[in-house]
Amino acid sequence: MSKKVAVIMGSDSDFPVVKSALAELKKYGVEFECRVMSAHRTPAEACEFASKAKENGFGTIICAAGMAAHLAGVVAGHTTLPVIAIPMKSKALEGMDALLSSVMMPPGVPVATVGIDGAKNAGVLAVQILAVSDDVLAKKLADEKQKMADGVREKDRKLQEEINSL
Amino acid sequence: MSKKVAVIMGSDSDFPVVKSALAELKKYGVEFECRVMSAHRTPAEACEFASKAKENGFGTIICAAGMAAHLAGVVAGHTTLPVIAIPMKSKALEGMDALLSSVMMPPGVPVATVGIDGAKNAGVLAVQILAVSDDVLAKKLADEKQKMADGVREKDRKLQEEINSL
Amino acid sequence: MSKKVAVIMGSDSDFPVVKSALAELKKYGVEFECRVMSAHRTPAEACEFASKAKENGFGTIICAAGMAAHLAGVVAGHTTLPVIAIPMKSKALEGMDALLSSVMMPPGVPVATVGIDGAKNAGVLAVQILAVSDDVLAKKLADEKQKMADGVREKDRKLQEEINSL
Amino acid sequence: MSKKVAVIMGSDSDFPVVKSALAELKKYGVEFECRVMSAHRTPAEACEFASKAKENGFGTIICAAGMAAHLAGVVAGHTTLPVIAIPMKSKALEGMDALLSSVMMPPGVPVATVGIDGAKNAGVLAVQILAVSDDVLAKKLADEKQKMADGVREKDRKLQEEINSL
Amino acid sequence: MSKKVAVIMGSDSDFPVVKSALAELKKYGVEFECRVMSAHRTPAEACEFASKAKENGFGTIICAAGMAAHLAGVVAGHTTLPVIAIPMKSKALEGMDALLSSVMMPPGVPVATVGIDGAKNAGVLAVQILAVSDDVLAKKLADEKQKMADGVREKDRKLQEEINSL
Amino acid sequence: MSKKVAVIMGSDSDFPVVKSALAELKKYGVEFECRVMSAHRTPAEACEFASKAKENGFGTIICAAGMAAHLAGVVAGHTTLPVIAIPMKSKALEGMDALLSSVMMPPGVPVATVGIDGAKNAGVLAVQILAVSDDVLAKKLADEKQKMADGVREKDRKLQEEINSL
Amino acid sequence: MSKKVAVIMGSDSDFPVVKSALAELKKYGVEFECRVMSAHRTPAEACEFASKAKENGFGTIICAAGMAAHLAGVVAGHTTLPVIAIPMKSKALEGMDALLSSVMMPPGVPVATVGIDGAKNAGVLAVQILAVSDDVLAKKLADEKQKMADGVREKDRKLQEEINSL
Amino acid sequence: MSKKVAVIMGSDSDFPVVKSALAELKKYGVEFECRVMSAHRTPAEACEFASKAKENGFGTIICAAGMAAHLAGVVAGHTTLPVIAIPMKSKALEGMDALLSSVMMPPGVPVATVGIDGAKNAGVLAVQILAVSDDVLAKKLADEKQKMADGVREKDRKLQEEINSL
Repeated sequence: MSKKVAVIMGSDSDFPVVKSALAELKKYGVEFECRVMSAHRTPAEACEFASKAKENGFGTIICAAGMAAHLAGVVAGHTTLPVIAIPMKSKALEGMDALLSSVMMPPGVPVATVGIDGAKNAGVLAVQILAVSDDVLAKKLADEKQKMADGVREKDRKLQEEINSL
Repeated sequence: MSKKVAVIMGSDSDFPVVKSALAELKKYGVEFECRVMSAHRTPAEACEFASKAKENGFGTIICAAGMAAHLAGVVAGHTTLPVIAIPMKSKALEGMDALLSSVMMPPGVPVATVGIDGAKNAGVLAVQILAVSDDVLAKKLADEKQKMADGVREKDRKLQEEINSL
Repeated sequence: MSKKVAVIMGSDSDFPVVKSALAELKKYGVEFECRVMSAHRTPAEACEFASKAKENGFGTIICAAGMAAHLAGVVAGHTTLPVIAIPMKSKALEGMDALLSSVMMPPGVPVATVGIDGAKNAGVLAVQILAVSDDVLAKKLADEKQKMADGVREKDRKLQEEINSL
Repeated sequence: MSKKVAVIMGSDSDFPVVKSALAELKKYGVEFECRVMSAHRTPAEACEFASKAKENGFGTIICAAGMAAHLAGVVAGHTTLPVIAIPMKSKALEGMDALLSSVMMPPGVPVATVGIDGAKNAGVLAVQILAVSDDVLAKKLADEKQKMADGVREKDRKLQEEINSL
Repeated sequence: MSKKVAVIMGSDSDFPVVKSALAELKKYGVEFECRVMSAHRTPAEACEFASKAKENGFGTIICAAGMAAHLAGVVAGHTTLPVIAIPMKSKALEGMDALLSSVMMPPGVPVATVGIDGAKNAGVLAVQILAVSDDVLAKKLADEKQKMADGVREKDRKLQEEINSL
Repeated sequence: MSKKVAVIMGSDSDFPVVKSALAELKKYGVEFECRVMSAHRTPAEACEFASKAKENGFGTIICAAGMAAHLAGVVAGHTTLPVIAIPMKSKALEGMDALLSSVMMPPGVPVATVGIDGAKNAGVLAVQILAVSDDVLAKKLADEKQKMADGVREKDRKLQEEINSL
Repeated sequence: MSKKVAVIMGSDSDFPVVKSALAELKKYGVEFECRVMSAHRTPAEACEFASKAKENGFGTIICAAGMAAHLAGVVAGHTTLPVIAIPMKSKALEGMDALLSSVMMPPGVPVATVGIDGAKNAGVLAVQILAVSDDVLAKKLADEKQKMADGVREKDRKLQEEINSL
Repeated sequence: MSKKVAVIMGSDSDFPVVKSALAELKKYGVEFECRVMSAHRTPAEACEFASKAKENGFGTIICAAGMAAHLAGVVAGHTTLPVIAIPMKSKALEGMDALLSSVMMPPGVPVATVGIDGAKNAGVLAVQILAVSDDVLAKKLADEKQKMADGVREKDRKLQEEINSL
């Protein structure tokens, strides 16, 4: 049976964006746990969660945080599981602060960073990681990739009609 | 048996940085293939390689490229394996161009981006991904994490001597 | 007879901006084809289209994409036609990501980049390229340049009235 | 017979970079004229040159300038030929100043911008533009694209040897 | 009698910001002329205006432009009067493009740049320049500086009331 | 008796910069402890040190780290002492990554950030914090401020000689 | 008895953000004075206030300013008290101007900078500074840290309900 | 007789760049005074100098400073003379910090900013300002503009020889 995915956000205000990650996990039937834990406000919980994530059956941990986004880095310091960061855009600096705080990790402690507010991609990446050793998931990913392409083709067809009717 | 890791670079001039990724893979005994393939100059090879990477026994693909770094994104368009990007610093813009070109992927096609010139971390992340379903690798990662901590502690001890002798 | 212009966008959500390019092409009576094709979601279509664009009668290809905007670069990898990029502004980073992803191409594979959301200019540039060997188009461009200047002069006149009436 | 290409630089100190553009033009047998003319120090010459470039047999104009790089924009204001900008990196700001000054042109006056210090690509783009109506040039471009791919493949082969001998 | 100030904007859409400069000039009783002239769309007018500005009785020229803001630089290339640039914020990049395009001028052709959308300051700076040799204006500037300080003091007093009433 | 200052750096490679902070502390006779502890490689030590810093007699903690500089934030999560961050410039991005990772802390967990590589200022700020309740230190700070001003005045005098001798 | 905190803002338009700092100070029972004083418009007042702040019983000074935010630096030039800067986001540049203007102070004159619009953190930092020598305040800070953690835990609990009910 | 120009730098380490401004002033026969005065380390001197600059016969003040470059803004707060800023590039951030700290002044207190390390242009701008009411200086500026153009033309001629001899 496939491992679970942990989804941690630094603040519950991140949830409207983060739920796109959960939607992906559900779509693929991947079990997940979603938590609010802060690198700065509840560091003990975050470290404890990270330290035990592997033995608790998690295969990867998604961390969403904004501003000086330390959550993914702190979690990565306490686990050998692959850690995925979603840098959240906040009120200033267009998300550049969270992006740099997430991605520029020192040698030896990687964080797999996706784009700013890229919660859907974090979910897909988590599934891809689990699918490395899970052929059923891998098959679903291939099917979805096909559907996604079909979606683009359908939009292309509609565009032709729209242009012709101009 | 564990899957292989592919390491692709857009130009052989990236090799001095990229070899830190290979060193990590060797340290963990992970089999790898290292290639020069360009998203813009040999796109057919890159797409073909990516398309068949899964059936050829690869578990993840590391892509290193600079400037408008499209390699990881193009590869990710042709595989469902997790794709890791190393944004390379080049002559202008301090690597910001490669970072944004790698990480800001559209929904549905994630690229797991590490820091600028972060080849070592790309190697470690690849191992972490394989280790999700490989307990031997996972054990090695935990051991290395311990060694890394011991290394910091040793440096801390030496610093005390240095400071005392000032 | 003049060549056609291809206008490709990575997502149909780019159309409200991209249609300014089409409006220019229509104004000059240049035939065009407008498509939704994604470097990451329908790469095969995009590569195929680019590879055959020249033999299919296209003279230049306009590519609009946002975020890690790889479309123009990927298309340029498959054609010797001049490729024009429109970097699209998206939700974060003010379009800087798409600009750098479009313009910073490696040696040997140029992309002619216009400003962020600069769809009108992409259309004009496409016409200018065709006009290099098409004197009728060149004459129209000169006329439009004149009209554009007249438009500024007219606005200058109106401003004088507005200021005088203050 | 094919049109000529003009290559203008704002300062003779740009020549060490700009000559890569000339090398491309020579490789393709495209005739060119190379000039030092400044948008700010010899504006009359630059405007005059641009105004008469079409009637003097030029098909496109490459402009190289650094800092507040106005040369390409000023030239584009005086011609309907496609104008290519090479933003030059100078002492501060890593070339970002020249890039934005070149690419962010107002509607109606496009500048086809290549990457920072991207002189080779400016040369290739100029050839691509002339090749739209010149089948001999187009054939040469296709051949060069093939050679470029072969070059990458050769480097890939050499890398395999290097890795095997490690 | 004091010289006049010219206020040129690249597009009439800049007027809502630019009129703060005019308001300053009016406040100080400085005569001005306000024009729409574009470095790219009506370059001949802009150059002609700049070339004759001194003999036409102007003491300084304010130029407002956005994006690749070349207007001030082009004007400065045609006059020895001090030229003041107002970099305008436009839809992307938060005004950084206009700022760098205005301020990073090559040696020998300075542009006196004020802050993004800083039209009021451009007006004040123009007055300061004229006041170097005009004691009446200098006196008015000193009076306004005093009023400005009084305004801050008044706001400070009101804040005390507001805080006390909390 | 005054409290001690802790100076923590994420890597011993930061020491050449960090020692300017120690020099300041020595100059003022403030006792300090200097340690290598990493937020990501020895997080347990860092958290433990921070948690007990107050009871161990420290009054403030200086943290130096580069790239995704999480050290100050992590330490601030485990103490109520004022935490000072020195963002270190590393190989890419000119220190902007460390600056944003240090300063953009979420509400409730401040980090007092000084400039990039600003180790001397971190030392001075630590002394200023201790001096709030230590009149001897406060007196020394005032004396040093005086000396610093005298130093500038001396340089001004020397400059006059240098200019006169030109 | 504990020292007072001064809160200075460069413009009364900063008050809606700055009052979060005052709220913190009130919460901890720290006495404060809040003023509008400008580094550029009422420099004499600002310098005088700073020069006498220590003898007037202040322990630290919070300065809020936007754009070229010189207030904190100017104040720091006139006092040996720790000075805290709140860089304010204004209409352009997302607050980056105020951040760099505040934090990049020259050696010898530190400014303790918090995040953009980080008024709450400025308040907390001021309390932390006073608490170095005030055990009652230190105890309150520890209690608040606990409450803050409890708040996150409560949000985590609510999130579980929300997710379960999806 | 023409007014004098003051040239102030925040640190004597700025002199190697700043002397280009002095060279311009000498070339035009403009009298100047050059000083080291710091906004943060000798603020009293800087404010006093600025306050009395007008009555002491100065027509404009050039201020060179790096990092959080407050010198020009502080000086502008104490005078109604036009103040010119030279933002100095220092070790980090490529001069962007000094540029934004200089140019983004609040309404009512303009600073005429030239490019990063643009000392020569600061000198020329100072002369242009004095020349508004000094026809001899204005004539010299026109002559220099002519010489500058001749210099570019000479370089253009030499380039032709260099190209022909390739």
